[in-house]
Amino acid sequence: MESIAYMGVPGSYTEEAALGYFKNKYELIGCPGFHDVVDRLLTKSVRYAILPVENSSTGSIHQTLDLTRKKNLFIVGEAIQKIEHYLMAVKGTEISTVKKVISHPQGLEQCGDYLRKSGWELATGVNTAVVAQEVSERKEKGIAVVASKRAAEIYGLEILDDRIQDNNNNFTRFVILSESDDIVVDADKISLVFIVKNTPGSLYAAIKGFASNGVNLIKLESRPIWDEPWHYFFFMDLEGCVLDEKIKKAIEYLKIHCKEYRLLGNYKKASLTKEGG
Amino acid sequence: MESIAYMGVPGSYTEEAALGYFKNKYELIGCPGFHDVVDRLLTKSVRYAILPVENSSTGSIHQTLDLTRKKNLFIVGEAIQKIEHYLMAVKGTEISTVKKVISHPQGLEQCGDYLRKSGWELATGVNTAVVAQEVSERKEKGIAVVASKRAAEIYGLEILDDRIQDNNNNFTRFVILSESDDIVVDADKISLVFIVKNTPGSLYAAIKGFASNGVNLIKLESRPIWDEPWHYFFFMDLEGCVLDEKIKKAIEYLKIHCKEYRLLGNYKKASLTKEGG
Repeated sequence: MESIAYMGVPGSYTEEAALGYFKNKYELIGCPGFHDVVDRLLTKSVRYAILPVENSSTGSIHQTLDLTRKKNLFIVGEAIQKIEHYLMAVKGTEISTVKKVISHPQGLEQCGDYLRKSGWELATGVNTAVVAQEVSERKEKGIAVVASKRAAEIYGLEILDDRIQDNNNNFTRFVILSESDDIVVDADKISLVFIVKNTPGSLYAAIKGFASNGVNLIKLESRPIWDEPWHYFFFMDLEGCVLDEKIKKAIEYLKIHCKEYRLLGNYKKASLTKEGG
Repeated sequence: MESIAYMGVPGSYTEEAALGYFKNKYELIGCPGFHDVVDRLLTKSVRYAILPVENSSTGSIHQTLDLTRKKNLFIVGEAIQKIEHYLMAVKGTEISTVKKVISHPQGLEQCGDYLRKSGWELATGVNTAVVAQEVSERKEKGIAVVASKRAAEIYGLEILDDRIQDNNNNFTRFVILSESDDIVVDADKISLVFIVKNTPGSLYAAIKGFASNGVNLIKLESRPIWDEPWHYFFFMDLEGCVLDEKIKKAIEYLKIHCKEYRLLGNYKKASLTKEGG
């Protein structure tokens, strides 16, 4: 059975997304961080990797796109998962005795209003499910964790409060990464990265071809060029298939105005409402 | 003496930027988080606030722009600080005995290659200088901190390795926030936020006025609209003064294609090389 690298341990949101996307067709291998997931792919010890790329409330998880670009990986699919955070602690804990709450920084941020009102001390960990596992193993009293319902079940923690995210429309988008660019026939979303030439109006000129060919831009985001302070890459998502003539024309036009360009992938768009797991 | 709210404790990079920008004209008040800094401003207990907004290697610190928008604050200045990270621990520690390294996530990320090579366990804290203070107070052996040289001096920690950031061109940009929009006569940088109308090509149309009026865009970045998954605000920085006719025309043109628009500020651009503190 081929395998998939994901970030975290069983009960992490990325593992849930992987289960929803790949069903039981692959063995899932949890890894501590972004680099570890990507290394598994580069050393060919897994077929695909799955990483979170954007949360609908808190924004981009930039490590994923930065690594995709730097390591010449391809995006071959995406998954969207509804994220509901639960407050949990070792069995027998009363919510009134909680002093400190630990989670991944994004987990804390997505429950920011709720947590600030309660006045608990906040601390960060590498992954929501890893924190749940650690608190469970150490049987620490007075400490609560923000993680998924599934993490509470797996690590035998008691749920103190449910759906504590500030925003009920809280979704995370994940990308499926591969070393090869497997374009599927029904691909309808394109991700690309480019650096525009250093001339005034170059960004405007670069995206002109998309407007004039009626191509819908989904997202445009700047990211720093590592060794050139205050100069930027642009990551762009758009609707369509690279085999379509209009898209070909728009991309040719973009390339004229760019110093650098790479297609990151052309894949099937996930639906917003798919809840996975 | 009027006062300034900054994030962290003495020895934080934001405090150094505040010292460089405001000299000794204001009392500096350290606050634990982004919200605390902004609350000081909203309750008028300080005249200005200073927050980090972007690092040249790792990108935007989105909490700052999100809060500026949500709380109707204005950007009235900016400061750029060269960031050099030092590895430090309690006196008498040998680097070979270090087991764990703690810092703010951005500090860890900016030294990512260096730290990964060493194979130390990594843990995150709320602020580089707060972590330095805590490790110093607890006299914890085997733990090192990534923070500024000044933090080592203030908290009596020993420097184990210097300038450990992966990128020597590592700068952080800070914004000075105010409740009122004090536009200075020599203002040469504009920050604004907008949401384009839901029509194909609207982003392209919105920025057309800048290209046709020869206005230089510095930065364009999307951020999620909190309650509308996969829809975005755009934060834009550009060169110029809102009193200039060309800028007025370009902004009028932008507004036609937007559902929402707000000027975040018009202020004096910081130079890249200013090292502050």
